[in-house]
Amino acid sequence: MPAKKWRLWLRFTIAAAILLPVAAAGEPIRSLNLMPVPEQVALNPGRLRIGSGFTARLSGHQDPLLVMAMDRLRGRLQAKTGIPFDTIPEDPGSKQAVMQIHCSGPGEPVQSPAADESYRLAVTDQGARLEAPSPIGILRGIETFLQLIDLDGQSFFVPCVEVTDRPRFRWRGLHIDVSRHWQPPEIIRRNLDAMAAVKMNVFHWHLSDDQGFRVESRKHPKLHQMGSDGKYYTQSEVREIVEYARQRGIRVIPEFDMPGHSSSWLVGYPELASAPGPYRIERSWGAFEACLDPTREATYVFLDAFVGEMAGLFPDESFHIGGDEVDPKQWNANPKIRAFIKKNGFKDSRGLQAYFSRRMQKILAKHGKVMIGWDEILHPDLPKSTLVQLWRRQPSPAELAGKGYAGILSRGYYLDAMEPASFHYGIDPMGQEADALNSDERSRILGGEACMWAEFVDAQNIESRIWPRAAAIAERLWSPPGVADVEDMYRRLNSLSRELERLGLRHRTNYAAMIRRMAANGDAALLKKLADLVIPTRLGIRQRSQSYTSFTPLNRMVDAVPPESETARRFDQSVKLLLSNPSNAGVIRQVREALTGWIEDEKQARPIMEQSYLLTEIRPISETISELCLKGLQALDYLESRQSAPEAWRKETSALLDRAGKPQAEMLPAITASIKRLVEAVD
Amino acid sequence: MPAKKWRLWLRFTIAAAILLPVAAAGEPIRSLNLMPVPEQVALNPGRLRIGSGFTARLSGHQDPLLVMAMDRLRGRLQAKTGIPFDTIPEDPGSKQAVMQIHCSGPGEPVQSPAADESYRLAVTDQGARLEAPSPIGILRGIETFLQLIDLDGQSFFVPCVEVTDRPRFRWRGLHIDVSRHWQPPEIIRRNLDAMAAVKMNVFHWHLSDDQGFRVESRKHPKLHQMGSDGKYYTQSEVREIVEYARQRGIRVIPEFDMPGHSSSWLVGYPELASAPGPYRIERSWGAFEACLDPTREATYVFLDAFVGEMAGLFPDESFHIGGDEVDPKQWNANPKIRAFIKKNGFKDSRGLQAYFSRRMQKILAKHGKVMIGWDEILHPDLPKSTLVQLWRRQPSPAELAGKGYAGILSRGYYLDAMEPASFHYGIDPMGQEADALNSDERSRILGGEACMWAEFVDAQNIESRIWPRAAAIAERLWSPPGVADVEDMYRRLNSLSRELERLGLRHRTNYAAMIRRMAANGDAALLKKLADLVIPTRLGIRQRSQSYTSFTPLNRMVDAVPPESETARRFDQSVKLLLSNPSNAGVIRQVREALTGWIEDEKQARPIMEQSYLLTEIRPISETISELCLKGLQALDYLESRQSAPEAWRKETSALLDRAGKPQAEMLPAITASIKRLVEAVD
Repeated sequence: MPAKKWRLWLRFTIAAAILLPVAAAGEPIRSLNLMPVPEQVALNPGRLRIGSGFTARLSGHQDPLLVMAMDRLRGRLQAKTGIPFDTIPEDPGSKQAVMQIHCSGPGEPVQSPAADESYRLAVTDQGARLEAPSPIGILRGIETFLQLIDLDGQSFFVPCVEVTDRPRFRWRGLHIDVSRHWQPPEIIRRNLDAMAAVKMNVFHWHLSDDQGFRVESRKHPKLHQMGSDGKYYTQSEVREIVEYARQRGIRVIPEFDMPGHSSSWLVGYPELASAPGPYRIERSWGAFEACLDPTREATYVFLDAFVGEMAGLFPDESFHIGGDEVDPKQWNANPKIRAFIKKNGFKDSRGLQAYFSRRMQKILAKHGKVMIGWDEILHPDLPKSTLVQLWRRQPSPAELAGKGYAGILSRGYYLDAMEPASFHYGIDPMGQEADALNSDERSRILGGEACMWAEFVDAQNIESRIWPRAAAIAERLWSPPGVADVEDMYRRLNSLSRELERLGLRHRTNYAAMIRRMAANGDAALLKKLADLVIPTRLGIRQRSQSYTSFTPLNRMVDAVPPESETARRFDQSVKLLLSNPSNAGVIRQVREALTGWIEDEKQARPIMEQSYLLTEIRPISETISELCLKGLQALDYLESRQSAPEAWRKETSALLDRAGKPQAEMLPAITASIKRLVEAVD
Repeated sequence: MPAKKWRLWLRFTIAAAILLPVAAAGEPIRSLNLMPVPEQVALNPGRLRIGSGFTARLSGHQDPLLVMAMDRLRGRLQAKTGIPFDTIPEDPGSKQAVMQIHCSGPGEPVQSPAADESYRLAVTDQGARLEAPSPIGILRGIETFLQLIDLDGQSFFVPCVEVTDRPRFRWRGLHIDVSRHWQPPEIIRRNLDAMAAVKMNVFHWHLSDDQGFRVESRKHPKLHQMGSDGKYYTQSEVREIVEYARQRGIRVIPEFDMPGHSSSWLVGYPELASAPGPYRIERSWGAFEACLDPTREATYVFLDAFVGEMAGLFPDESFHIGGDEVDPKQWNANPKIRAFIKKNGFKDSRGLQAYFSRRMQKILAKHGKVMIGWDEILHPDLPKSTLVQLWRRQPSPAELAGKGYAGILSRGYYLDAMEPASFHYGIDPMGQEADALNSDERSRILGGEACMWAEFVDAQNIESRIWPRAAAIAERLWSPPGVADVEDMYRRLNSLSRELERLGLRHRTNYAAMIRRMAANGDAALLKKLADLVIPTRLGIRQRSQSYTSFTPLNRMVDAVPPESETARRFDQSVKLLLSNPSNAGVIRQVREALTGWIEDEKQARPIMEQSYLLTEIRPISETISELCLKGLQALDYLESRQSAPEAWRKETSALLDRAGKPQAEMLPAITASIKRLVEAVD
């Protein structure tokens, strides 16, 4: 549709519009549930009513992708409203609200980082119009439209808005490690659904590591046959997932980690290794010594055939070779490899890895692929065409761009670190030296990727570790940098979490199911109230707390509870409100009731904890929480009576807070900071 | 395994066993969560510990069915415990508890009602042994084993038991109508999973009716093309579902309703009708006039080809032709049909239907099928080989058997009637004259079928209408007739409901999702507390309350809440306890707190109800509930103070109870009977 016609269509609506770039003001979106926040949103008065007669129509460029998107739109509308839009109406001529979807041109044959994802959505009380230059923009706009659907006393509706939108970064990824714990295809599909809902566009599939090789290879069948315990994606499953992603505007980038992290390759092909075998599938976590031998030509013959085969499965232009955490021990211990390093004048093993990277880059180029690797592959000899994924402290995005490489940021986006969403939300892909970058350098920072490493996630809890937190990262990568209100982010994140549930995500239902399992025949709802008051410790502490392997059941409380506690976050808001206005009787009562209730819950839950071996370990932390609540109540008493607290109480309280700061059963109380606030306010 | 060896294996365990036939005593099962209750259970002291090392091994007769069952057993064990049994252990020689599964012979090529479903399960603290004469018995035994898994302070475990089990009836069915509302394949599969969990063995698939023809027919493609709105099962989907059922020991019986209930056939093939067309897919409920013409040979040519095609899709020996609710209007209005009736000496239209049934019986026999029909097909001329499904008041099972027909009972098992599980549980397939039956007659009563008619169920709420209630019917059909303790049935039904959730059933999650939808951005947990206090009215009232069609959204509270309220059932138990022992202060406090809490909930939920159009209609009933609670509290006051109530209070209360007995928004308060109990106890 030409711009002129578009303008004509908007004629009646623009007059009343409060046109504000969100980045600047933020206010108009406060009442909307959009995530990520669009580049520009204008909220107009009025509502488009959504009832049985609502229909959507396609016009402009024809593409099967759009027809499939319309089918999903219908299904999603039905799931959201319960109105059977999929039943063919008796009287198609009746008065109906219409969503006109107009795509003005084709997309790329294979989606690339250059894809145009922009769209415009205008909703009046008469109808909606979604327009985009290419099918992928339409996909993005449909998600915005669906997020806008709300309910009032009259009907379902979409507020009258004008949205002009496009992403800030072209690379908005989610990385999932399926090697350390296997994830069946349906879980990958659910994650792709969720990614599409928050407009992410790259699924980075970590398909091999020391603990498993997860793709069927027909060229080298011992890779999956001996390296996977039978848990791998067949080629037809891979094709289905790649197609599923394509329909949602998501690129799929396979990663085969090499030359390190390669134990699972070497179980079937020990001849590729730098030290004699035999090798086995590793069962514990950490980095291992197993390493491909970069000095033998046979290694490259093998990899050439392998890349050729995988290139046929994964149409994306990018191919990730890992390259992280190479342990040089095997190389240094092998006289032939030492000799090779010397003969070629490499300074050290890093020079040998750079040689390997260059060889891989040529193989990949031969098969039409761009190479990506983790930041360890950086080396003066690394071709500038290589994409670099930053995960370590150094280099910064600015340093990388300054060296002439394009890259994506994952440092600060590690979901397995178990940080709150607000932490990730505060990390900008441009890094802290963004202002010092020139426009060329800026253009080389393509975006970022949330990373879900899988030491502590299995098929039951992976969704609650990724979602909804990854949506905060998705917003950071899509929305203007000024969109940074953490409170509003959490409000929208909660709304999005419900949206994801409707999409079939199990981040909440599996949490509830795990609680039910632990409660055995006891009251699971009561146990959940306690569970909502604890959070898992950060990754590092957990790694050191016991010796985990892939056989260790992940069925404990620490595996079930979400990385952050919404209950505790809300409680903390009340506490802050109370402290800013100590005469607010309503808030005081609210805080008091919460604390009293939790003490009572803990008391009541004790018999449940006794009868289930999975709960034995949480008794100490639940007692600590009960004590924290008691101290909180006492602090309230002092505050209300304006008395100062005796020294003994202060000492006792300080000891308790110290105790609460130490992990118990690999968890921490989620309300410690709030109690500390209350205690510190006492005179 | 020969009986001798089995006995040997039990040698050490029988000594300590409390061997009691459950039907006689019932006590041993009170602590178990088995549903249906087995024919014989002996509970021994001791527990078999289930940990990472637990394995199951197959011996005896080899059958792919068993290999698939072992795979599912592993997956179910993992889902139930969170222990990764599917990871291949490093050291298979380590000490492990073993479940030995021994199948001593083959099953039937195509499962029939004669299938041997018996099994024996013996669990000691050292291991478990499951033995059955055929693979289907193994499937049944695996479900029993899974239901026995529990959790204590030490680990997951299975109590030491000896189970000897086989079904009381050979036909234990679930009938699902997919014509009035379409149900996608995944919902059928989930229902098959649930059926297998409660040992049901017949899926009766109601595939055509006035509102839709739901199977792809290649012989007569206008059936599904014009009769289904595009919502039909492809032949490959049918094959997949039949195979899915077969793997779970479930027969699949297709029903194509004829000669009435056939509007959807006639949209594409009006020439088969008894009156000139055109016909359309019906959108409302009730019986329609459309009827096949049984007087034309072309009708039978058409049906012969159709049955031949369907016989290739559905291997089961039975084929259901419906035959219910034939409206003779079209026949009587058609001079040619009237002449045919006269010429053949039929007494009336029922004689013509009997003629049609005989013709169909011959066509079915030609394709190797046994005919089944609803009880309207009964007629002196009906061949005795026909199976009759009883649904109307007459005839009784005894009458049917007395006439020499075999049959199954569905009267009393209609799930759409929205009766409580206890109602269905009280209906015996033998009927009330069971004692008068001789053994031949008894053997002709094959069992029964729970029926889910689909006027008021769509894909979102069908599971909460079928499950867990159908399990009460499954138990009635499997367990000895003496298993009849309603309280214990409900205890086990709740446990089963959790088991079904783990299997992936959505009867609870979809209820919660519908509540969340109605709550919009309000507190869904609060709204759910109110929702747990209402129940849908019985079917008849609902049918008369407004004009429903297939376009009517089923997104209201009446569509969401389960057919019976577990909250109200528990409350009623407390009230009964209170009244039987009015000095029990603990129970009085409990009842008082419940009533006070609900009054408070209703008050707090008012703003949520105002902001959502889906909740506007529930305000009156929620106010009624609040008033009921208030009256209950007042009654408690009178009871505690041993005062008699004034006449005005009695009048007021009686008026309120009357009001509460009338449907509001097609629902009823679930606590009315309990309040009435309290009120009536007041002097």
